[in-house]
Amino acid sequence: MTLSNIDARYFDDFQIGQSFASGTLRVDKEQIKRFASEFDPQPFHVDEVAARSTIFGGLAASGWHTTALTMRLLVSSELKIAGGLVGAGLDELRWPRPVRPGDELHLESEVIAVRPSSSRPGQGIIKMRTTTFNQKDEPVQIMIANLVVPARPH
Amino acid sequence: MTLSNIDARYFDDFQIGQSFASGTLRVDKEQIKRFASEFDPQPFHVDEVAARSTIFGGLAASGWHTTALTMRLLVSSELKIAGGLVGAGLDELRWPRPVRPGDELHLESEVIAVRPSSSRPGQGIIKMRTTTFNQKDEPVQIMIANLVVPARPH
Repeated sequence: MTLSNIDARYFDDFQIGQSFASGTLRVDKEQIKRFASEFDPQPFHVDEVAARSTIFGGLAASGWHTTALTMRLLVSSELKIAGGLVGAGLDELRWPRPVRPGDELHLESEVIAVRPSSSRPGQGIIKMRTTTFNQKDEPVQIMIANLVVPARPH
Repeated sequence: MTLSNIDARYFDDFQIGQSFASGTLRVDKEQIKRFASEFDPQPFHVDEVAARSTIFGGLAASGWHTTALTMRLLVSSELKIAGGLVGAGLDELRWPRPVRPGDELHLESEVIAVRPSSSRPGQGIIKMRTTTFNQKDEPVQIMIANLVVPARPH
């Protein structure tokens, strides 16, 4: 959790096509309900019986829980950035299928663009496509994020 | 939290330009640290002292905490949709400034596009721009989301 990680990458170290894997994270029914109770208290996220007659056909994690779990996997993934993982925002986010109780998630990230900052010479932006998969290797989330990355100090 | 809300809107009820307001939600230091400890354990989100020497210059909420708080405000906002708030994904997400301990958030949502589903006649997609503001009315998040909305039953 320290920022001075000798393995951390600077902007200069990134190029299009690099990819990074993660470990896995399992999400259970209680976690799904607890997250949703606090942030997204809708029947299909908090009530298994009521969820059956909704568009999800059963209990499903909030999409915002999926993004949060993806961030947890990213922070401990192979992708180590000097100064930390700092997002400027997303260009796209899709949830092709819901996360269900008992799902075990992992992710793959790929660098799809690298751009020096025009206004701040000491940093750049890398664009990453991060796909979150369930245990059947089905994508549950696809996200294109812009990360702020410092240039290597002289 | 019931899906059979007489005030709920169907796809037929939406048009470009409609806007919806929310209540307010305050976020404190402990909530910021608790969320980040679980999902985004980086120094600038969990450690006030370490945060000072980072790009944030002090403790800041994880962007994913901001999205989750925004969802909490949306669920209890004026925007009531038959079948619930179901996101197909985002076209854009920006965090123009961080959420800080003690900030009180509110949001404004506006319908910016309305499109019947080509594959599923019983539903459509509405595109909403939702801006999350702090207590100084500064935007902390701008999100363009696509919501799945059922057509009114015949």
